[in-house]
Amino acid sequence: MPLRTSLLALALSLSASAAWAGAPPPAVPYRSPQQILDASKPSDWRTLDPANTLYLELDTGRVIIELAPAFAPQHVGNIRTLAHEHFWDGLSIYRSQDNFVVQFGDPDGEEPGKAKSLGSAKTHLPAEFQRPAAGLAFQPLPDRDGWAPQVGFVDGFPVARDPKAGTAWLAHCYGTVGAGRNNDEDSSIGAELYVVTGQSPRQLDRNITVVGRVVKGMELLSVIPRGPDPMGFYEKPEQRTPIRAIRLASDVPEAERTPLQLLRTDTRTFREVAEARRNRRDAFYKRPAGHIDLCNVPLPVRAPPK
Amino acid sequence: MPLRTSLLALALSLSASAAWAGAPPPAVPYRSPQQILDASKPSDWRTLDPANTLYLELDTGRVIIELAPAFAPQHVGNIRTLAHEHFWDGLSIYRSQDNFVVQFGDPDGEEPGKAKSLGSAKTHLPAEFQRPAAGLAFQPLPDRDGWAPQVGFVDGFPVARDPKAGTAWLAHCYGTVGAGRNNDEDSSIGAELYVVTGQSPRQLDRNITVVGRVVKGMELLSVIPRGPDPMGFYEKPEQRTPIRAIRLASDVPEAERTPLQLLRTDTRTFREVAEARRNRRDAFYKRPAGHIDLCNVPLPVRAPPK
Repeated sequence: MPLRTSLLALALSLSASAAWAGAPPPAVPYRSPQQILDASKPSDWRTLDPANTLYLELDTGRVIIELAPAFAPQHVGNIRTLAHEHFWDGLSIYRSQDNFVVQFGDPDGEEPGKAKSLGSAKTHLPAEFQRPAAGLAFQPLPDRDGWAPQVGFVDGFPVARDPKAGTAWLAHCYGTVGAGRNNDEDSSIGAELYVVTGQSPRQLDRNITVVGRVVKGMELLSVIPRGPDPMGFYEKPEQRTPIRAIRLASDVPEAERTPLQLLRTDTRTFREVAEARRNRRDAFYKRPAGHIDLCNVPLPVRAPPK
Repeated sequence: MPLRTSLLALALSLSASAAWAGAPPPAVPYRSPQQILDASKPSDWRTLDPANTLYLELDTGRVIIELAPAFAPQHVGNIRTLAHEHFWDGLSIYRSQDNFVVQFGDPDGEEPGKAKSLGSAKTHLPAEFQRPAAGLAFQPLPDRDGWAPQVGFVDGFPVARDPKAGTAWLAHCYGTVGAGRNNDEDSSIGAELYVVTGQSPRQLDRNITVVGRVVKGMELLSVIPRGPDPMGFYEKPEQRTPIRAIRLASDVPEAERTPLQLLRTDTRTFREVAEARRNRRDAFYKRPAGHIDLCNVPLPVRAPPK
């Protein structure tokens, strides 16, 4: 089917929305994800909450992280304290492993006497690998997943769920932010963080506390030179990428914040974007996949319209 | 189960090999992928064939690509011609889209009068999206896949298969090399190539001709600065990454080749490495995943032992 961009086609497609509630979408002309987004309503979008927003300031620009207090309340609380007290300022990204993660924090954090003070942050937290599924507005994907019984979205985050056990957890996708730990499952406190820069390492799900996801600026992290095998820790301090500052957006003057809207994942628009990716029917694709993996679903972000 | 590295444990594990043919592995002490590789036999490895090896020479180093003539014989033939006649020398990587691909070739290839001559390469080829499954030594993974009825490996390449249709095709994983095309499915000739640098875009499977995979040097491609949205094509020529040369290894003097061995994917060692990743039972992992995705299976490469 050729790519259709006429306004008539868009109007027809939108007028069908009331009739569709969970059933397969009607046979309307194909619209690309961008065309669907261009036709979205203001109420399809939410504004990033400054209290759940972390700015990672690099020499190359600002990386914006949305925190997930619904899944990791204690870690997010500690991260807020650490950011508020400027813990990360002057520290670095000290690890970049190709097709896996970048990791940042205090490279001397394990060395007594050299480690930077954690200020009033807590020095011990419980693991927050999963939580009860009850109480979450979970939007399931119809697509099967190899790693979990069910996958979908909660408030913009990719989530896996086990209906039998009644549990849910954040999934490791590109851009996922997690709390580095040692071998003990309760050895993370949110001071050492990593961001996934490679193929979704879902084997980490429920093995590490996930604290959020990057919503803007991944292209600043993904190009950071890789460190040596096997784990990508740099050999020399000068190879590290300096961190100018990490701040909670709510601690930053309003004029210096980056206004950002995220597509709500509980909207028809989001389901349509996912479907437009699951079955691409534009002039380029010859064979729609009929499937999309959790970590291939785009999570659209935009500047607020003027 | 704690990480076990004793030689006794390795010996016990290896001696069990004759009894295992497709059944679940016996309950032996856990060995990490690296420990399994360290205990591999010389016959577990194959040497990269110079006639199927492409060297992409950048200012930062050499990227090594293994071609897949069993899946795309005509494209591989054309690529051999183009490399032999130095088509790519002085051209560039002109696109880098975050979490997707880098693309290289002739940025003026579409402009009549400006396009570089293709020499004696063919200017039209049929699409080679899939092939008959018959005749391939397919090693299936036991893991389920959302995109295809069956996935596994053929001679080191990640492959999907449809037993009903009797077809097989190369899967888009990190490092997969494909032939860029326009909207017509037979519009690729192998002169414009892309390499996957992000989350496996499996929706491209059977929509593009895949010609090979990067076996060494991904860390040189993955750090290339991203071009602007939406597709990552650079705005200015000086932003492109120059290509010094692309050569078939068989056209390079033997002293200048990079000797490389790849783990054979039809070996017990390979199955054990995949299983050690599928169910990690070391001191760090608290919950083995019980699953591995096709594109998460490592494809080990090494320098030949002295």
